[in-house]
Amino acid sequence: MKIIEGGVTTAKGFKAAGYGAEIKYKNRNDMAMIFSQVPCSTAGVFTSNVVKAAPVMWDKVITREKGVAQAVVVNSGIANACTGKQGEDICRKTAEVAGKELGIPYDTVLIASTGVIGMQMPMDRVQKGVEALAGIIADTKEAGTEAAKAIMTTDTYSKEIALEFEVGGKTCHIGAMAKGSGMIHPNMCTMLCFVTTDVAISHDMLQKALSSVVVDTYNMISVDGDMSTNDSLMILANGMSENPEITAEGADYDSFYEALNTLCTEMAKKHAADGEGATALFECHVINADTKQNARILAKSVICSSLTKAAIFGHDANFGRILCALGYSGVDFDPDKVILSLESKAGSVNVYKEGTPIDFDEEAATKILSEKEVTAFVDMQAGTEEATAWGCDLTYDYVKINADYRS
Amino acid sequence: MKIIEGGVTTAKGFKAAGYGAEIKYKNRNDMAMIFSQVPCSTAGVFTSNVVKAAPVMWDKVITREKGVAQAVVVNSGIANACTGKQGEDICRKTAEVAGKELGIPYDTVLIASTGVIGMQMPMDRVQKGVEALAGIIADTKEAGTEAAKAIMTTDTYSKEIALEFEVGGKTCHIGAMAKGSGMIHPNMCTMLCFVTTDVAISHDMLQKALSSVVVDTYNMISVDGDMSTNDSLMILANGMSENPEITAEGADYDSFYEALNTLCTEMAKKHAADGEGATALFECHVINADTKQNARILAKSVICSSLTKAAIFGHDANFGRILCALGYSGVDFDPDKVILSLESKAGSVNVYKEGTPIDFDEEAATKILSEKEVTAFVDMQAGTEEATAWGCDLTYDYVKINADYRS
Repeated sequence: MKIIEGGVTTAKGFKAAGYGAEIKYKNRNDMAMIFSQVPCSTAGVFTSNVVKAAPVMWDKVITREKGVAQAVVVNSGIANACTGKQGEDICRKTAEVAGKELGIPYDTVLIASTGVIGMQMPMDRVQKGVEALAGIIADTKEAGTEAAKAIMTTDTYSKEIALEFEVGGKTCHIGAMAKGSGMIHPNMCTMLCFVTTDVAISHDMLQKALSSVVVDTYNMISVDGDMSTNDSLMILANGMSENPEITAEGADYDSFYEALNTLCTEMAKKHAADGEGATALFECHVINADTKQNARILAKSVICSSLTKAAIFGHDANFGRILCALGYSGVDFDPDKVILSLESKAGSVNVYKEGTPIDFDEEAATKILSEKEVTAFVDMQAGTEEATAWGCDLTYDYVKINADYRS
Repeated sequence: MKIIEGGVTTAKGFKAAGYGAEIKYKNRNDMAMIFSQVPCSTAGVFTSNVVKAAPVMWDKVITREKGVAQAVVVNSGIANACTGKQGEDICRKTAEVAGKELGIPYDTVLIASTGVIGMQMPMDRVQKGVEALAGIIADTKEAGTEAAKAIMTTDTYSKEIALEFEVGGKTCHIGAMAKGSGMIHPNMCTMLCFVTTDVAISHDMLQKALSSVVVDTYNMISVDGDMSTNDSLMILANGMSENPEITAEGADYDSFYEALNTLCTEMAKKHAADGEGATALFECHVINADTKQNARILAKSVICSSLTKAAIFGHDANFGRILCALGYSGVDFDPDKVILSLESKAGSVNVYKEGTPIDFDEEAATKILSEKEVTAFVDMQAGTEEATAWGCDLTYDYVKINADYRS
């Protein structure tokens, strides 16, 4: 398995495009389409927010109940959430237009939206966008990148990845595009991520792999603790690599699982590092916890702490805030056993051990915390389980971006 | 019952003082003492953080098990948390010095600390501070104010309140001082608050009243979602108003309860309004929820949402973020029944009703959101329960204060 250049058009048989439909933004692309030459197995995981956007409800039926999809239509600018019956109608109409243009059943078209909540979509412009996209989709790397750019909102860079791996003697590919740097929270991804692969795999095994992989990847990131109404991670598998179809666990499933897991880990880190206003990726690695679930909760509590995030922005080794965040996580533990160090490319510094602070070189600590990727390394000395969570620092720009995002 | 001028020295028999002991800060008072002429019934509620500061563990024994206290010693600058055995020793020594100076048993001296976590206290300076305070405590209003000022950290104003009320035909008083504008989170107060009263009440009834009152007052505020290691709310009741001692529920208990509830509500709002960097008090009032607990969870979820808080700072009626925060609160509800309006002294605007956004005057909404106190009014149309939570906006100054608080 290796990471290669590419995105959603890397796997065989997938086309994509981006287009400027002026849904809300001007002078940029704001709609994207992904299309597979043949019908795909599909699976998805979605926001657990009670307030679900119309497209989330639409996609859940397709990915979870029907299991077959062939295209995706995405727009940025308006989330189509809290939009009632009208929002649902727009979803269905968009799928109908796309189905007609692409010559596929309308109920194999996945829909996704991101942007302002509580605003209605302009159906006329959506329709024009879909028609235009159907005419320009291509299987080139550039087409994939155009699609990835079109779905950005406050992201500072587009997010793509591709991997090559082997299943049953056949070379397979998996690629993805994603967006999202705000409204990112652990309970579910809180962003949009679309994965395409040419591996042959049944719907059941695809959903199983996806549901399992998100637990330690997308569910372990947070930018600001707000969980979106639109979070969606969907995968399309068209089988064009001609491997023997994966229908049960085994070596082939494991190969695919490993590729999907690597893809989701790398993409999750991209989301965290591009957190709104962020200057650094902040990782918390918890080891020797008593249970896996507790390791996850502890790691997430640290990367979600506003005070800790602000300290990271200030390059301040204020480790007491990390201990504090471990303490209010809900996990019961003995504070007198915890060992804490701060690490980055610039080195490592031990700051706390078994109940007492350690004298450390402030200057060295500041240097370590001034890197682009900073890790809080926590040894609970309570068992053998570990987990990693990813977040970012809290900056002036986070406030600036969100104080006036809508207008 | 009426609110009057005053603080911790308003109730009969209480003295207080502030003093500059240079625990960490220079050129300001950083230690305070409260002393009652006679032993008091005492009660307390404390942080639920697993990582508890040494003074919290000290005070829990006195307020919960022994039930009698006569003095309080507080310092700002260092939290005496994550300080191991040495931190516990310093607590005990501080109580011993105070006991000796004041001529009372050392185990009737409550201790509280606030400031940097993971730093040891300078015992020599603490001792000098306690000795100085014992010599200058006074029963004047000014002395109470000096004490209130000495315990501030990033607070922009000192927090005091006093009330007069009647119990069993006797005029009673209750007063308080508090600090805390960061590390404030709903699960427990996350600040220090000291309440003094001259009412006569048994330890059991005092603890009962306090534990009940915090649920809808201090536990309903949040500044940043971080729960401190030091949160403490303690009360001393010395009985000097000579009312028949309250030992059971009834009219007298109700009178006292009402006064304590009003005091805690007003103080909790002061904490929220003085949230680090805050420019506005942000209140969420949820009505017609199915259960009381769900009403509380919904209201708190809204005032804790970073995105909503940033929108309040930007005076932006981005109501979708409020619906989103209701949705991820963990409470199950029907989004199509929710009615949402935004209110302040400048007026009220309806923004969302039963599944769809309402067209509203943006200019009027901005004016409403530009006030110092802003309310999100949420009608769940699911029952008859209600709750209110208080927070503040998220500003550049919050980040500034916390990016470099320690150094």
